[in-house]
Amino acid sequence: MSSGNLLVAFQGEHGAFSEEAVLKNKDVLAELDGSKRGLETIPYPSFEDVIKAVEKSWVDYGILPIENSQEGTISETYDLLIKYNVYAVLDIKLRVVHCLISHKDTEIKDIKKVYSHVQGLKQCSDFIDRYRWEKIPTYNTAGSVQIILDHNDRSEAAIASKKAADIYNMKILKEGIENNDRNYTRFFIISNTQQTELEYHLSNFSAKFDNIYKEIPIKTTVIFSTYHTPGALYGCIGELANRGINISKLESRPNREKNWEYFFFLDFEGSIDDKKCKEAIENLRKKASFLKVLGSYICLES
Amino acid sequence: MSSGNLLVAFQGEHGAFSEEAVLKNKDVLAELDGSKRGLETIPYPSFEDVIKAVEKSWVDYGILPIENSQEGTISETYDLLIKYNVYAVLDIKLRVVHCLISHKDTEIKDIKKVYSHVQGLKQCSDFIDRYRWEKIPTYNTAGSVQIILDHNDRSEAAIASKKAADIYNMKILKEGIENNDRNYTRFFIISNTQQTELEYHLSNFSAKFDNIYKEIPIKTTVIFSTYHTPGALYGCIGELANRGINISKLESRPNREKNWEYFFFLDFEGSIDDKKCKEAIENLRKKASFLKVLGSYICLES
Repeated sequence: MSSGNLLVAFQGEHGAFSEEAVLKNKDVLAELDGSKRGLETIPYPSFEDVIKAVEKSWVDYGILPIENSQEGTISETYDLLIKYNVYAVLDIKLRVVHCLISHKDTEIKDIKKVYSHVQGLKQCSDFIDRYRWEKIPTYNTAGSVQIILDHNDRSEAAIASKKAADIYNMKILKEGIENNDRNYTRFFIISNTQQTELEYHLSNFSAKFDNIYKEIPIKTTVIFSTYHTPGALYGCIGELANRGINISKLESRPNREKNWEYFFFLDFEGSIDDKKCKEAIENLRKKASFLKVLGSYICLES
Repeated sequence: MSSGNLLVAFQGEHGAFSEEAVLKNKDVLAELDGSKRGLETIPYPSFEDVIKAVEKSWVDYGILPIENSQEGTISETYDLLIKYNVYAVLDIKLRVVHCLISHKDTEIKDIKKVYSHVQGLKQCSDFIDRYRWEKIPTYNTAGSVQIILDHNDRSEAAIASKKAADIYNMKILKEGIENNDRNYTRFFIISNTQQTELEYHLSNFSAKFDNIYKEIPIKTTVIFSTYHTPGALYGCIGELANRGINISKLESRPNREKNWEYFFFLDFEGSIDDKKCKEAIENLRKKASFLKVLGSYICLES
């Protein structure tokens, strides 16, 4: 890597929520990396470009959204995590505050069209529908501000972060227009090296920072497939349940090679450094037709 | 209902894949309904409009896509099935064949932009990316043909069904441009009345039609939430597994009221008319913090 800085890839344009999640946690990430370097965020056009850059060591880390508290799983990320050889090393939850952004001389009554990422439009649908504005889906939230800037039409508005409005020097007509004030997005920081010594890092974090997600500080994610026999999934989950390991999420994604067969993403509390988690994974490996350990990670909330 | 016909609501414009799925199975649906009436498909702008029309008896049935073999769960449908009081009465799998549709005088080399529903763009991404065309997401596939017709710009193309090209009298430049020739979409036919006597209907179907999905003819879907205790999900699934009932799908959706809690959608083989399925559901009801039986249905492939 040519830069002296710690490089972190994100999807979208500067001002994206992914970038905000990295910048809010940059001290934690530097601590985890053990690095004294500065941190630089690098925009990439797609999620696949981000994960590829991480796999090929063009950057040190990448960030990918995996789940929104209101809209659910970001399925594209899950599919990429099956395809590429990377690890989850940190779990970050970010409170997502959407702003209605316009040209300086626009008032709410002037607006006819509103641009944002599909997720942004969904997360603010109650507000948008009250005004019956036309919704135009774009490929990212911050980029939608660039679009209305280019069009220079005061009947157009965008939905994005406060930061995006600042970057493009546009007006914030209204802040916090999301349907639900419990709107959080969960991200994975990914690396091409598995994170270890989680308990050591966690104690360092706890001493220095206050944004550790207190109740469930360390989790592990595994991806697996089952054989096509009755009770197969139940048997796999039993390897965890019977050891008293708490499952926090179970999600299925289709296997693109075999119709109506699935990959399961299982999040559970505990680390691959723990003896009982290690045992559970080894037994799961014997029962599953496919198993990949995505990694163990500390959970943060910011 | 004012019309003498059996009314079936679908989302989008005439020529949509949902409508195709209904029309291909109209004899089966008439048989299930026990009706001698003709069948009429009614377009609605959104999935929510479709499910609302069914709940309020403005139509007899509705159709909603629930899953694509390549792209996975249609999360919007799952959320609506939690919110509205309807039942799944039939499961239809449709082989989705996408066409590249243009103006009569357009050649492939003239194209710069391509319009379709986000799912259509995703399902044909390999083909589109080969030409580096700009992708413009729209709210439905058939509607994107209407858009390029209105724009009257020969550098624009749309991705939709063969039927949509016929309806708008446009040219099919290429048929079958989807990434994967195993591209199927699974739909639920919904009703505000639960379907019963499935074995009786199945024997009628088998005698008359040849599009029954042979291996798994009857399935049931339940939606449930678990208490937040270790082993809770495992205990719920055990009610089925321990009775030898095969789970065909398990999917989680976020609870919008409680962050990082989930509704599980569980599909299993068998009908609510079966004694052991009925028992499993009753026991699941005791263990779950929430349970809703979405219904039992016959599975078809067309």
